[in-house]
Amino acid sequence: MIAPRADAVRARAHELDACTETPGEITRSYGSDALVEARERVRGWLEQAGLEVRQDAVGNLVGRREADAPGSPTLVLASHVDSVRNAGRWDGPLGVLVAIAAAQRLEDEGIALPYALEVVAFVDEEGLAYAASYLGSRVWAGIWDGAERGTHDRAGTPFEAAVRRMGGDVDGFAEARRDPADLLGYLELHIEQGPVLEDEGLPVGVVTAIAGQSRGFVDVLGVAGHAGNTPMRLRRDALAAAAELVLAVEQLALEPDGPTATVGKLEVSPNVGNVIPGVVTLSYDVRHQDDAAKDAAVERLRVIAEEVCARRGLTHVWRHLQDHPATPMAPRLRALLVAAVEQAGIRPVELPSGAGHDAVSAAHLTDVSMLFVRCRGGVSHHPDEHVDEADVDAAVRVVDAFLDLLADDVRARGEA
Amino acid sequence: MIAPRADAVRARAHELDACTETPGEITRSYGSDALVEARERVRGWLEQAGLEVRQDAVGNLVGRREADAPGSPTLVLASHVDSVRNAGRWDGPLGVLVAIAAAQRLEDEGIALPYALEVVAFVDEEGLAYAASYLGSRVWAGIWDGAERGTHDRAGTPFEAAVRRMGGDVDGFAEARRDPADLLGYLELHIEQGPVLEDEGLPVGVVTAIAGQSRGFVDVLGVAGHAGNTPMRLRRDALAAAAELVLAVEQLALEPDGPTATVGKLEVSPNVGNVIPGVVTLSYDVRHQDDAAKDAAVERLRVIAEEVCARRGLTHVWRHLQDHPATPMAPRLRALLVAAVEQAGIRPVELPSGAGHDAVSAAHLTDVSMLFVRCRGGVSHHPDEHVDEADVDAAVRVVDAFLDLLADDVRARGEA
Repeated sequence: MIAPRADAVRARAHELDACTETPGEITRSYGSDALVEARERVRGWLEQAGLEVRQDAVGNLVGRREADAPGSPTLVLASHVDSVRNAGRWDGPLGVLVAIAAAQRLEDEGIALPYALEVVAFVDEEGLAYAASYLGSRVWAGIWDGAERGTHDRAGTPFEAAVRRMGGDVDGFAEARRDPADLLGYLELHIEQGPVLEDEGLPVGVVTAIAGQSRGFVDVLGVAGHAGNTPMRLRRDALAAAAELVLAVEQLALEPDGPTATVGKLEVSPNVGNVIPGVVTLSYDVRHQDDAAKDAAVERLRVIAEEVCARRGLTHVWRHLQDHPATPMAPRLRALLVAAVEQAGIRPVELPSGAGHDAVSAAHLTDVSMLFVRCRGGVSHHPDEHVDEADVDAAVRVVDAFLDLLADDVRARGEA
Repeated sequence: MIAPRADAVRARAHELDACTETPGEITRSYGSDALVEARERVRGWLEQAGLEVRQDAVGNLVGRREADAPGSPTLVLASHVDSVRNAGRWDGPLGVLVAIAAAQRLEDEGIALPYALEVVAFVDEEGLAYAASYLGSRVWAGIWDGAERGTHDRAGTPFEAAVRRMGGDVDGFAEARRDPADLLGYLELHIEQGPVLEDEGLPVGVVTAIAGQSRGFVDVLGVAGHAGNTPMRLRRDALAAAAELVLAVEQLALEPDGPTATVGKLEVSPNVGNVIPGVVTLSYDVRHQDDAAKDAAVERLRVIAEEVCARRGLTHVWRHLQDHPATPMAPRLRALLVAAVEQAGIRPVELPSGAGHDAVSAAHLTDVSMLFVRCRGGVSHHPDEHVDEADVDAAVRVVDAFLDLLADDVRARGEA
């Protein structure tokens, strides 16, 4: 079956490969010529879809299509066009390109909607050059805190110069906030970057929430000793205690409604085969769409660490570093997305997002929703990142259906 | 209570501090001026104790005292005078100096023994310069395999030149073997390098065996993945599996008559907080005085690794690197040592040695025995290594008693 709109999305995604700082791989950081070039191609496609394009103070593009009546609310379709270093092709651009394809259908078929549409291409989600994520959407959402001001990227380029390179102006950031008064909501389409949809055999899934995240480190302090001459009863083995904690983290996550929890980093000192480990440092990363459940899991872990270390005669230092709250998706938009998935003939599955997205920023401004698209093996941030064209087609059809269902809903509620 | 002989041992141990490659620390490697200097001081003390001193082809000193009748057997008292880098003062020298103190008593009191006595100062036990342990005792025991021939130390000194620097000759190694025909046995006194005697509140302990050792690595092969977007049920977490193995090693060791078993080294890849570990490599070190028990423990560990990885959908590579068999102490000498400890008024405790010693080489030649002396905190191979003078006194008295008891035993058996 030929799906010409999905094929066009695929072709454009491939076309953006050429916009890169490093030939042979895909790297587009904020302030780079590669990103400017990619954005200008996107500008052309936005215009081709009949959208009126403006650029904001950070360099984001906003293509607008008016509603069939003045005073109507506005729906935002958004994603980002920057990338990590040596990235895949789909993380970011897929959402922008499917949004443009949706706008193109409205244009081509002359469809009148009871709401205005804005397609936003954010210019910095990954934070590759200036470290912090979501710059583009933070400025757009009016939650930029000025942290990047006066900083430099690795090549020594001042942040302010990068903003100018993107055609923006730091002094305009404060006024760049999208006025939320007329906003109906926000939909971001993104590759899943995980294996759930592939495991379910489904092309798309509706996001329930972007999980909150707590992370930190535990230093387990034992006593190093000779592996031959220290009998088991006289040991204070930091690694044995740490092993119990690794398994406790997993056990916590395996409980019903448990968090997603990971020990990704573990370091042993002195880390020599014939020496009993004296100190082990391990990380924890706990995520849940319910902040209270996440915080309770972290607290239980802390109690377990106390118990394990006390029982073994060790001490520990608990270094809690970061808490990000969850971003729940708006029930109305989420329900419409589920209905759109069904209308596209796909079994609707809902799943949380463990990773953050621009929707985290957007939620400060308006109701948000997200649609995930299956990616092969869950691989992302890697050149092997891949989306089947059939799944792009499914994504396009679901967004079409969503726009139509939202139109019905807006009319039914008399919002227009 | 003044113990002049222990005080003399202490003073000589301190005197050897000055023989070092690096001022301010103790480092005496094979081939160094520092080791030659230390050996020459030991030669003087051997001669002072009335021993006739010869030097063998690797540079070991052998001080001999004849028996009261020709044709009598010979007892060897031995330890080493070299050190690790930035060593303690007691590991090695204590055994040599207590042996000299024992010989001095025989000389001073004109005690006739039905066996000859040889005090041996081995010149390379630690293998600091040329990597392999027990060079001195291997040449003495006639089990040198030629491995060091043609090698260089870190400074580029050929092994043969180091041997010459020690006054030896590699071509003489093959004939340097101590003829075992007249040997009655071997006693090595050494600091424990572990915490058992301190825990028992005892100055000395009788060694049952030098434990055999098996060691190797396990590579646990999972699948790396995003810590946020990979649900628990789809994970192949190499660290969680490795944590089970760490605890299995400990559990095995805690069983009655279990081995001493340690995971000292563990490395995670990619070792990033928000990435599920894809590969973990962990070491195992299993020791037991019973080789069959050791091998059975390693085999059980291998089966557990199979089971854990199969259950979790992972694979693993089992890299078994090394097996050293145990060196049991000779029952006759061990029983005499226990009796000597009792005669010195000390509660006799027997314990295995997890670390290797020159007695491993000596066992290829004759019956061996070892007496451990308490060291503070079990610390060794470190400047903090410490032996209380009262414990040196106990060691001297136990060796005296051992020599006397052995004399009675030799006479009773009609061996002289």
